[in-house]
Amino acid sequence: MASNIGHSYRCAIFGESHGKMIGVEIDGLPPGEAIDEAELQAFMARRAPGNSHLTTKRKEPDLVHIASGIMDGVTTGFPLMAYIENTDQHSKDYSNLLDHPRPSHADYTAYLHYKGFADMRGGGHFSGRLTAPLCIAGGIAKQILRRRGIVIGAQLLQVAEFVGTPFDALNVDAETLEKIATKEFPTLDFRAGAKMQHAIQQAANDGDSVGGIIQGAIIGVPAGVGSPMFDGIENRLSQALFGIPGCKGVAFGDGFDSVTLRGSVHNDPFTIQDGNIVTTSNHAGGILGGIANGAPITVRIAMKPTASISKKQQSISLSKHEPEDLVITGRHDPCIAVRAVPVVEAVLAMSILDLLLEEHSI
Amino acid sequence: MASNIGHSYRCAIFGESHGKMIGVEIDGLPPGEAIDEAELQAFMARRAPGNSHLTTKRKEPDLVHIASGIMDGVTTGFPLMAYIENTDQHSKDYSNLLDHPRPSHADYTAYLHYKGFADMRGGGHFSGRLTAPLCIAGGIAKQILRRRGIVIGAQLLQVAEFVGTPFDALNVDAETLEKIATKEFPTLDFRAGAKMQHAIQQAANDGDSVGGIIQGAIIGVPAGVGSPMFDGIENRLSQALFGIPGCKGVAFGDGFDSVTLRGSVHNDPFTIQDGNIVTTSNHAGGILGGIANGAPITVRIAMKPTASISKKQQSISLSKHEPEDLVITGRHDPCIAVRAVPVVEAVLAMSILDLLLEEHSI
Amino acid sequence: MASNIGHSYRCAIFGESHGKMIGVEIDGLPPGEAIDEAELQAFMARRAPGNSHLTTKRKEPDLVHIASGIMDGVTTGFPLMAYIENTDQHSKDYSNLLDHPRPSHADYTAYLHYKGFADMRGGGHFSGRLTAPLCIAGGIAKQILRRRGIVIGAQLLQVAEFVGTPFDALNVDAETLEKIATKEFPTLDFRAGAKMQHAIQQAANDGDSVGGIIQGAIIGVPAGVGSPMFDGIENRLSQALFGIPGCKGVAFGDGFDSVTLRGSVHNDPFTIQDGNIVTTSNHAGGILGGIANGAPITVRIAMKPTASISKKQQSISLSKHEPEDLVITGRHDPCIAVRAVPVVEAVLAMSILDLLLEEHSI
Amino acid sequence: MASNIGHSYRCAIFGESHGKMIGVEIDGLPPGEAIDEAELQAFMARRAPGNSHLTTKRKEPDLVHIASGIMDGVTTGFPLMAYIENTDQHSKDYSNLLDHPRPSHADYTAYLHYKGFADMRGGGHFSGRLTAPLCIAGGIAKQILRRRGIVIGAQLLQVAEFVGTPFDALNVDAETLEKIATKEFPTLDFRAGAKMQHAIQQAANDGDSVGGIIQGAIIGVPAGVGSPMFDGIENRLSQALFGIPGCKGVAFGDGFDSVTLRGSVHNDPFTIQDGNIVTTSNHAGGILGGIANGAPITVRIAMKPTASISKKQQSISLSKHEPEDLVITGRHDPCIAVRAVPVVEAVLAMSILDLLLEEHSI
Repeated sequence: MASNIGHSYRCAIFGESHGKMIGVEIDGLPPGEAIDEAELQAFMARRAPGNSHLTTKRKEPDLVHIASGIMDGVTTGFPLMAYIENTDQHSKDYSNLLDHPRPSHADYTAYLHYKGFADMRGGGHFSGRLTAPLCIAGGIAKQILRRRGIVIGAQLLQVAEFVGTPFDALNVDAETLEKIATKEFPTLDFRAGAKMQHAIQQAANDGDSVGGIIQGAIIGVPAGVGSPMFDGIENRLSQALFGIPGCKGVAFGDGFDSVTLRGSVHNDPFTIQDGNIVTTSNHAGGILGGIANGAPITVRIAMKPTASISKKQQSISLSKHEPEDLVITGRHDPCIAVRAVPVVEAVLAMSILDLLLEEHSI
Repeated sequence: MASNIGHSYRCAIFGESHGKMIGVEIDGLPPGEAIDEAELQAFMARRAPGNSHLTTKRKEPDLVHIASGIMDGVTTGFPLMAYIENTDQHSKDYSNLLDHPRPSHADYTAYLHYKGFADMRGGGHFSGRLTAPLCIAGGIAKQILRRRGIVIGAQLLQVAEFVGTPFDALNVDAETLEKIATKEFPTLDFRAGAKMQHAIQQAANDGDSVGGIIQGAIIGVPAGVGSPMFDGIENRLSQALFGIPGCKGVAFGDGFDSVTLRGSVHNDPFTIQDGNIVTTSNHAGGILGGIANGAPITVRIAMKPTASISKKQQSISLSKHEPEDLVITGRHDPCIAVRAVPVVEAVLAMSILDLLLEEHSI
Repeated sequence: MASNIGHSYRCAIFGESHGKMIGVEIDGLPPGEAIDEAELQAFMARRAPGNSHLTTKRKEPDLVHIASGIMDGVTTGFPLMAYIENTDQHSKDYSNLLDHPRPSHADYTAYLHYKGFADMRGGGHFSGRLTAPLCIAGGIAKQILRRRGIVIGAQLLQVAEFVGTPFDALNVDAETLEKIATKEFPTLDFRAGAKMQHAIQQAANDGDSVGGIIQGAIIGVPAGVGSPMFDGIENRLSQALFGIPGCKGVAFGDGFDSVTLRGSVHNDPFTIQDGNIVTTSNHAGGILGGIANGAPITVRIAMKPTASISKKQQSISLSKHEPEDLVITGRHDPCIAVRAVPVVEAVLAMSILDLLLEEHSI
Repeated sequence: MASNIGHSYRCAIFGESHGKMIGVEIDGLPPGEAIDEAELQAFMARRAPGNSHLTTKRKEPDLVHIASGIMDGVTTGFPLMAYIENTDQHSKDYSNLLDHPRPSHADYTAYLHYKGFADMRGGGHFSGRLTAPLCIAGGIAKQILRRRGIVIGAQLLQVAEFVGTPFDALNVDAETLEKIATKEFPTLDFRAGAKMQHAIQQAANDGDSVGGIIQGAIIGVPAGVGSPMFDGIENRLSQALFGIPGCKGVAFGDGFDSVTLRGSVHNDPFTIQDGNIVTTSNHAGGILGGIANGAPITVRIAMKPTASISKKQQSISLSKHEPEDLVITGRHDPCIAVRAVPVVEAVLAMSILDLLLEEHSI
């Protein structure tokens, strides 16, 4: 089964880009949680297109309707179903794509997997549009976590070759994480951010696209939460994060950079601070043996360049079974990493809440 | 639940470093599969310590006993339980560690998670020794997959700053993958390999350690196998790979390098070759939308530097609740990435077989 | 997690009796299956109230809207979400019940489990109304199974002390199962049926209720399908059937009657018929060791008397914490077993399709 | 997957009747639980054959070896693996059965399911012998539950047509449940018990067998524990109980008898007693809407007559594909319900502990 995840906060995503509705069914919400729908809607707006000149001009108001599981603004504990009605579809923009799989998209693999029956208009169930229900599930989770002092944030760390400043691995705080969420272009490093935006604009001008790295951080997860082997924090977060369309890499703490360090540098020494056992550095990204050690959890997500570009590309005709050039029209983000920042937050929130509920640590 | 994974080839790992036995219980083996125990034992030997001057001198013969699920060398379809008796434990070597958590190990997080009851001698259930049962489960899976033309291999791609030659993303073949498995130091690039070994030896001489990147490749997975969202090939493989102790990053295809590419470069064009739809490059690592496209599946795994080093480190005393220096004696690999190469193969094999059995694609 | 079931045909139920919508999200539908919505609607009508003088007079048209997963009447393979809008709620009828848990209902246990936050108007998520989404999931499954020659039917076998004629354990055929579905009062035995109806009418006249036994039958499941231990056909069907509100017992084949038989009578002898291995009797209900043997699968489900009765009952006031009499007004079925007949069919269909898809036997 | 069950106390059973070992791997044990191995062994002895003249004369000492997960008699929280070495196999007794499936056994269905590769000597993985690992998992669970005031017991309620006295549905206490476990023939009703034993002896004398009903009771489960729909107490217990070889029916509270009652009789009235909300009767068997209401949980399990009888039966030859008579030699229980009594307790304990751990209610 593909489109559901979680055990104690189980989210099942449904919908297609050009269908009637997209949404999510969530089982396992604790009863008695106030859910601020305006705050949820504001979170949805961070993902919605049309926010800036760097994102697609399609308008998706992403108005969330809650069909069950909430009464008078408070969770009942029953399954919550929430949906968004699809409104701004231009199916004819995509009509020639059904015979010509777009390079680096799921068009061809879905064609095989679903034996030609999948409704792939606009990318179908594989569309980036399906990150909206992820944001519903994650936006609700964020509110529940925030109430327990667990705060999640994310930023653009890199676009093309322009690298910003990472979160302070040891001391990143809630204020920083919440402030960055208010920025139109969410990156800590103003100067690098300007270069990133320029790179995106240039790619757009060229009918092309660029990739990026998103960094996420989670603070407040109690030390001791997690599991060994296949069910640790890294296992769960990576399984969920690779569900974001375009994600090609996930790394915790120093990640791939750790390989060039010696153990004597990479190991995080222990000490006592204010009576608590803490580490004096955080190369581990807050996780040892799959279990939180109390330091901030940090993670990097590699987002590939947007697959949909205006430039002419080589595809094939499925019906003629021969190579044919393809030009994708329509409106696309030149860098999917930008709008994926709140999606990363959402996925982290879903996964961490699931873990905490399962361990009854909140 | 921590120590089991898989749905249709479900593996449950048990045992502690200094316990009586370690092993694995496997449910879901197809009936009628001949399992060559000598071949399995030879695969185990690739992981076993003491193979070279670059690995720990501990001897773990890792002799596999099969307790159920096989009759006359053929799987019955009933659950298979296999175990290794622990023999070469030096528990006293580790005795002072129980009060002094080793930096970058799971000692402290396990102490919290298991409320002080975990048997952490030698790392307990978190020990690298527990990769032996992974190799049992993966070694059996490899034999079943090989019979269907699915071949899995891995190599050391990087140690410290020395980078070797990656597998040919589009054309890596079974012969290459199987040949590299026979090498004492498994890397395609002889010259880079020499530098890697030198770096490891230097770290060992300094009482220190280094990290490394392992690259895995899987060929023969039929196009169309996989799932969208949370249950795709990347989701499953990453969840499993982060179960290898020391793994801090997982990336597919171009992974983190893809972010500096433009879409026009990164997108893999389609063409027709010998009547088949194929791509002319493989930046995607053989996976689009979580589903195999028929190209080789390629993955990189970042292994942090070995946490156990001889150099003096700063820890704390749990009983005194104050900082204390720690010197770890005993025998440890200066670079865990070396012996993790067959473990990566094993984990890939377990995961891919699980997926294929679930989809009944083999 | 409570409200979802299945692995390969996974159904997640949502909604409350007096909420906005009730429905189901289904993941795992095979692509390319024509779904006849009129046939589905006709199946829904069998469960809907108001069909006869023996069922509640509430009108629930149960009009099914499909929001995703189907295009041009054919499954795409993507998750299907279907919902029914709630229309005919009379919340004030139930208002005094929120402080006075109804005996034999989930009111009190839900009050504890959900800490007072559950929306229990009309029974909330525990309402018999939630069997409508089960009928959506099962009605779709029935169409897919029918196409493969697997037919599912059910009848009222007993109401109060009046027992009808069971299905012929060995020779029940599709024609019989499909014909009984067309009857207003679904029982094979006309005479016993008249007595059953009379008993229901009498109970209704007395402001009381009666229970009943439903018998289900499944024909066409290929011999060899199933699993040992905890995942066999009996395990799966019983887990699902106890999800029907009011179900208090599930038995296969001769069930509880088997205990008075000797093995020499109960054992089903083998023979060869038309070249096939068959049994000459079917005390086992078509299942041995959790696996189908090719004979019809037969199951009995005990449905307790409707908990909601008009007669005065003793309850307590939750707010005053003292005993208080309770009179339930509103409209209720005097025998829930009657309308549960298609629900049993639906649950059997969901479960069998899940099993067959998981084993790729269809 | 067939042979594992549970989420938070997950048990995976392995082994065959005539293999090397049988056993269980358990993941999810809470750390710090003292496990009394002598008490466990005494519990195993209740299931072991040879206890009385009414059970098979085979001797299976069922000596439990614990391979992992326990240190100094206390659970570590790591996976526990425990095994029993098979010793008293007489494979030749069963040799002719491999070609002649025994009526009412899994021989034929397993032959199909496992494509002829299953090791069916002595019933293979389907053997009643595999209830020994269930008793390991359940015996450990019983000790953990007992410490929290949750006590589980079972008795023979019926053999052939002889019915004993059920547990007092409302007031059954721990003393009664623990006392009955010490009896050689575990039934409350001495007189009915004598008749049951006589019926078993007569069946044995005739080379035949009889069935029986086991009644289980669980006291001390906190009110509010459980779930609606598919994951309630009835769903979980029934799924597990049908894993006991020979179980053909499961019913809670009044079960199948409830259908002849009117709602006004069956509904359990609420009252206040000693300041607590309680019911004044317990027709519901302690469960409403899948959730415990605080009253004792009561369940009945129908066990069919032993399939292995000495009398000549009609089978077929798989190799000749023609009918042939079959005479089963060897030693068999004339009534499997007798030795299944502790197995029912074990399965109830496994399931309830799993539920309580999942809900963190203990």
